[in-house]
Amino acid sequence: MHRDPFDWIDERQARLRTAGLVRTLRPRAADSDLVDLAGNDYLGLTRHPEVTEAAAEAARRWGAGATGSRLVTGTTELHARLEEELAAFCGFEAALVFSSGYTANLAAVTALSGPVGSGTLLVCDEGNHASLIDGCRLARAEKAVVRHAEPEAFAKALAAHDGRAIAVTDSVFSVDGDAAPLAALAGVCRESGAALLVDDAHGLGVLGDGGRGALHAAGLAGDADVVATVTLSKSLGAQGGAVLGPARVIEHLVSTARTFIFDTGLAPAAAGGALASLALLRREPDRAGRVRDVATELHRRVTEAGLVAVRPDAAVVSVRAPSPEAAVRWAADCRAAGLAVGCFRPPSVPDGVSRLRLTARADLTDSEVAAAADTIVRTAPTAA
Amino acid sequence: MHRDPFDWIDERQARLRTAGLVRTLRPRAADSDLVDLAGNDYLGLTRHPEVTEAAAEAARRWGAGATGSRLVTGTTELHARLEEELAAFCGFEAALVFSSGYTANLAAVTALSGPVGSGTLLVCDEGNHASLIDGCRLARAEKAVVRHAEPEAFAKALAAHDGRAIAVTDSVFSVDGDAAPLAALAGVCRESGAALLVDDAHGLGVLGDGGRGALHAAGLAGDADVVATVTLSKSLGAQGGAVLGPARVIEHLVSTARTFIFDTGLAPAAAGGALASLALLRREPDRAGRVRDVATELHRRVTEAGLVAVRPDAAVVSVRAPSPEAAVRWAADCRAAGLAVGCFRPPSVPDGVSRLRLTARADLTDSEVAAAADTIVRTAPTAA
Repeated sequence: MHRDPFDWIDERQARLRTAGLVRTLRPRAADSDLVDLAGNDYLGLTRHPEVTEAAAEAARRWGAGATGSRLVTGTTELHARLEEELAAFCGFEAALVFSSGYTANLAAVTALSGPVGSGTLLVCDEGNHASLIDGCRLARAEKAVVRHAEPEAFAKALAAHDGRAIAVTDSVFSVDGDAAPLAALAGVCRESGAALLVDDAHGLGVLGDGGRGALHAAGLAGDADVVATVTLSKSLGAQGGAVLGPARVIEHLVSTARTFIFDTGLAPAAAGGALASLALLRREPDRAGRVRDVATELHRRVTEAGLVAVRPDAAVVSVRAPSPEAAVRWAADCRAAGLAVGCFRPPSVPDGVSRLRLTARADLTDSEVAAAADTIVRTAPTAA
Repeated sequence: MHRDPFDWIDERQARLRTAGLVRTLRPRAADSDLVDLAGNDYLGLTRHPEVTEAAAEAARRWGAGATGSRLVTGTTELHARLEEELAAFCGFEAALVFSSGYTANLAAVTALSGPVGSGTLLVCDEGNHASLIDGCRLARAEKAVVRHAEPEAFAKALAAHDGRAIAVTDSVFSVDGDAAPLAALAGVCRESGAALLVDDAHGLGVLGDGGRGALHAAGLAGDADVVATVTLSKSLGAQGGAVLGPARVIEHLVSTARTFIFDTGLAPAAAGGALASLALLRREPDRAGRVRDVATELHRRVTEAGLVAVRPDAAVVSVRAPSPEAAVRWAADCRAAGLAVGCFRPPSVPDGVSRLRLTARADLTDSEVAAAADTIVRTAPTAA
């Protein structure tokens, strides 16, 4: 028969191209002099000499890879130390490190849902990160998707269910940078005996005392019915993810989570880098406040100039663009002016609204912040 | 209400404990003197000085992390170089690197299935790796699970379907180390116009000319209807995964694969380490033949001593154990004698049969191989 099994891809790519939604990779150089307001290196630690040297030393001492699943040969004393430090820093009983935040979220959602037939309901904020959504798709559980950041919507879904339940939410939503009402959500969960699972990827290093995260800030860290996930690839400047929670939850993940059991352990260099970042953050706790101040200042400057932006609850400042095409042009104009900004378009944005996504960094100076805001305002599309 | 939302975990852990299926982490030291026949460092490159130094140098030059999604700030010239080298080495048109093999498999299966309503059928070998199975669960497609390594079973499932289809298989199955009948599967796929998706995690570096993988060995690398996934964490001694295939398939993944778009890019140290391993493998192509010889010799020695083992098609030698408890004791006895071996028990083994899993390494000497086989035989349970 010999028909072409991938002919449909050409048609699909053509449709994406027409809609201005084709994505392409643009590799950066090591010595790029762009000012970066696009990445998630919130604390400016990715290239901090202490962090890169710790990563380099870990590769030399432990090897370039973990060699296997954490359950076989992939667990080192370095991983164990990172888990202890992470749990202690964030205020949880125990932690488990994964090769990415994505796989940590898949593990947390699926393992906490329990096996088939356990009748668990997952109540999910409609703005949740893709990895939480995929976790819910993989879980053998009922799902209810509820309106964004509305505790009453969670309460209603929980009240309609008889059996185990978990409320699942980001702490800070990646697209608009707004925070979830964690204290209210925890109250709602406790009313109905549900657990609370929070992805604190954008909260760690930014929110809470010295950057201990959104759950620490809400007084929920370490509670018996609360589980958090974090990434090591944003504020901690490395790679990987982790689940934080009660020891019994972590032990359960070790024995049952497929993305833990069947994945190679995190590379030692990433574990070493994240450990060094945690040590830096303990020593320099003001980095967390500084990144929030930079975000606030960016927001103040662009909104005072007439742009529409969401007031930042953490490090992300989302600025509205009139169309996907305008957003792409705007980001390109910023880039031509020496400033890298994020450009979020459908399908990455659930509401279909394109925006520039600016991320604050603790290591930007006041004059860099002012210059960046100026560039964004100067290049703004007239219809914005 | 305040009921305990995780009480069921205690019951579940107790059941696992009774069944001998609780898993615990055993962190290893950097200077452990165990002989490792448990990891997947098939070529012995994880701690090769050229590889660890390249990883260290990449961390220093590019940072400890990628700082964001590959589509935002997470793509560097280092990632691009690795993708070019990987594709060229394995004989494919293009490659795309992921933070883990798990996320690479999720991406390949879901993105190639196309959007909802495309009527794609995924025909899956029942022995496929967990990450392929999870990819199939996430995909908006019909699924058919067929008998292990039987081209006729694939043909029957494909013939019963009217529309697009993909045959999905490991090249070398992780548990027993046996190879898929790739040439026959490709024939079956072409009969019905289906694509062939092969996870070559355990083939890269071991099979094919100079370790170019199972698809290269089968003369299928680079074909227009064939897509492969590989890991950077086994033979290449680092961390991460990649999808290899026609350029249009890779472009499609860049624009649509959720675990690519919504995950932080691979850490530079892992990319740098994998690049150095590829260079080493080009320079020292005999490493691939050596690891196969070591596997064959391990198999010969343990079966001549009366143990039941699967003849290895690649680097993995699977030795049957009489029960989960006996397998655990056997592995512990090996460990006490200075030898680390893998111990696979349910639910990691789909057939419920526990086994020791030995992995050959190219850097073992003949006398180390003989001593290892001797230890395994000496500590074998009497019922095995």
